[in-house]
Amino acid sequence: MYNAQGLDPQRTIRDLKELRALTADENGAQRVAFTDTWIAARKFMRDKLADLPIEVEVDEAGNQWATLPGKSDAALLIGGHIDSVPNGGWLDGCLNLLAGVEVLRHIASQGTPPVTLRLVDWADEEGARFGRSLFGSSAVSGHMNPDDTRNLQDKDGIRLQDALARVGINIDRAPDARAQLKNAKAYLELHIEQGPVLESMNLPLGTVLGTFGVERHAIRFVGQAAHAGSTPMRMRRDALAAAAKLELEIREIAKRHGGVCTIGRVETKPGIVTSVVETCDCWLDQRHLDADGLAAMLAEAKAASETFAREENVSVAWTRIWRIEPILFNEDLRKMADAAIQEVTGAGHRLPSGPLHDAAEVARAGVPTVMLFVQSLRGLSHTNLEDTKEEHIAMSVEALDRLAFKAMEWIAKS
Amino acid sequence: MYNAQGLDPQRTIRDLKELRALTADENGAQRVAFTDTWIAARKFMRDKLADLPIEVEVDEAGNQWATLPGKSDAALLIGGHIDSVPNGGWLDGCLNLLAGVEVLRHIASQGTPPVTLRLVDWADEEGARFGRSLFGSSAVSGHMNPDDTRNLQDKDGIRLQDALARVGINIDRAPDARAQLKNAKAYLELHIEQGPVLESMNLPLGTVLGTFGVERHAIRFVGQAAHAGSTPMRMRRDALAAAAKLELEIREIAKRHGGVCTIGRVETKPGIVTSVVETCDCWLDQRHLDADGLAAMLAEAKAASETFAREENVSVAWTRIWRIEPILFNEDLRKMADAAIQEVTGAGHRLPSGPLHDAAEVARAGVPTVMLFVQSLRGLSHTNLEDTKEEHIAMSVEALDRLAFKAMEWIAKS
Repeated sequence: MYNAQGLDPQRTIRDLKELRALTADENGAQRVAFTDTWIAARKFMRDKLADLPIEVEVDEAGNQWATLPGKSDAALLIGGHIDSVPNGGWLDGCLNLLAGVEVLRHIASQGTPPVTLRLVDWADEEGARFGRSLFGSSAVSGHMNPDDTRNLQDKDGIRLQDALARVGINIDRAPDARAQLKNAKAYLELHIEQGPVLESMNLPLGTVLGTFGVERHAIRFVGQAAHAGSTPMRMRRDALAAAAKLELEIREIAKRHGGVCTIGRVETKPGIVTSVVETCDCWLDQRHLDADGLAAMLAEAKAASETFAREENVSVAWTRIWRIEPILFNEDLRKMADAAIQEVTGAGHRLPSGPLHDAAEVARAGVPTVMLFVQSLRGLSHTNLEDTKEEHIAMSVEALDRLAFKAMEWIAKS
Repeated sequence: MYNAQGLDPQRTIRDLKELRALTADENGAQRVAFTDTWIAARKFMRDKLADLPIEVEVDEAGNQWATLPGKSDAALLIGGHIDSVPNGGWLDGCLNLLAGVEVLRHIASQGTPPVTLRLVDWADEEGARFGRSLFGSSAVSGHMNPDDTRNLQDKDGIRLQDALARVGINIDRAPDARAQLKNAKAYLELHIEQGPVLESMNLPLGTVLGTFGVERHAIRFVGQAAHAGSTPMRMRRDALAAAAKLELEIREIAKRHGGVCTIGRVETKPGIVTSVVETCDCWLDQRHLDADGLAAMLAEAKAASETFAREENVSVAWTRIWRIEPILFNEDLRKMADAAIQEVTGAGHRLPSGPLHDAAEVARAGVPTVMLFVQSLRGLSHTNLEDTKEEHIAMSVEALDRLAFKAMEWIAKS
């Protein structure tokens, strides 16, 4: 029987504000991974756990684990990331952790739990400095290859390998962090939505179905540069026209399949007002929760681009930048999340996650996983303007706590 | 009665090749106005005229005038420009002048002409260094205001005023060059087409109807940046979508009105693959030979942009960058040009000029004007790849010569 006695969600809000005072400036959060501010934030979190019967360790990939031993070695993991983008918000990543701290406090206050509780602060979720997201969680899941990663450079030319060494991480040993999942039986992560869906439905919380699969491509249309004054319309080979048709068509493709498609960047060359566009580069991002849906969206976008290239007498070439398959969360845990949200808010909703999260890496590694989303105001994140109503933050802490108790019971019974 | 005796178009081809050897490198012509190479090119031209009964002077705006006195002060002007863009072609601007040199030789060989002949090398037609085209001819036409022009800077921060002073031109006195048009009764200019029309019709030469009017605008669509993964399609305010619709619509507008419309440059912000485009800047160039047609194209493009902005829930704002009215050439001279082309090639065609030329400034100043276009291969110009068949160059010299004789007779009779 769940007992809320001793859970204090307002304390989480106070902790979040304290962390902000410690690690943000007037432009926002500055907890970029592997910097001194990040190290200070991690110390802040350890200090918050100091009065509890908890051991803290850092694994080979730089993830910080706080363990509350239970009656069984079987472990329930709760995760988040204290790192932020530069000029980031006050909630992205650290809400997850500081809510987890409150859940640990609550569970510890009730005596030795039936299963072991582990709160993990993943290293460099954002990838803001080296362009490689999910560093720590992908090392743990077995999806980080040191040789593909070590030479990534930041804008000052510093290599990821060297930035890691500075904080005591040997990238060649990072894959050994896989051992951390040995007894993991379930993984929970709370996160701000970073999108407009819950706000538009006037709902504080939602259960995350899984993370979208992503297909990301650079598409290059090449026509012929020609003088804007002397070249009749019928004699043009305008690369921008083909790109414009594709921009409009990907929206129809997305709607048809229930995914999202975005051209977020376009570059035109020669890029002068007196010339027809010879080369138009577009960057296309497609996401879907279903692998077949994603593959169909990609195939249709490619076919459409070829049709448009023919119509405009230009060439088209696709280069894959990145892909990841859709990752669905565990249905037993999703039902527990639905129930926890229902108990706290009287309502519920399920939605996919567009952004990736460390939870996707843990799920890929075979650990039953689920996430909770709490409403983001205006859908904003990765900016100082990121915000969530305090009443919703409090609800999210309680929902995570209720979900943790359900998951402990589920693990203990299995 | 026209007598071709003594006209040697092959000499013009040799002169052009000699000029190329003197003023081009492996990347093309380097006769950028006011540079030492430009000064050397002008000396080359003066040397070509040295054996003729011709006076050469440079006016207050830096235009170089070669005058062959006739029986009357009434003057026929032939013009061109020896300046080129950096890495330019071997014909753009200097064909006009060196064909004019051959015409002067031919006319001088026949004794004192009935009217005065003046060959003008306009200063800085291209505007390649300071972004201000038609410097010398607009000074002569009364359309160059020193205060609007003096502080234009090149990429090294040198002011136009100072670059002019270096070659002996006082910008404040440049408007005095208007006096050069005092006795001008007609103006002729030969130029490469810089477009694909004559080549596509398999015609060596065409009569130019006039120069297009131009409306040039920067158009900014502003929507809302939003995460490409977490923002459902129906909740987006995608500035790129509105721009894509406009890119496709301007082509229909151009075809409807018989003009040309070009979006030659697009910029997207934040310009990252993971965000819906918040701000999309487009640069639109519209051209038409008819002022009403041009105004209608502009009005329709504005109305369309507002419709698309409404449809996409974004804002749109237009900023005019530049405009010039259409300039029609003189019908009497156009008929003489038709006849000269017919005599040389057995065929004829009339076409508008998309690019501007010094001829437009002379026509604006009220001097009856016409231009001849000679075919450009592949429509290329402003590149080392610019070319015209030598047989067509020879035809163009003869056509200009025949046109000059007709124009002299027309002036003498009036």
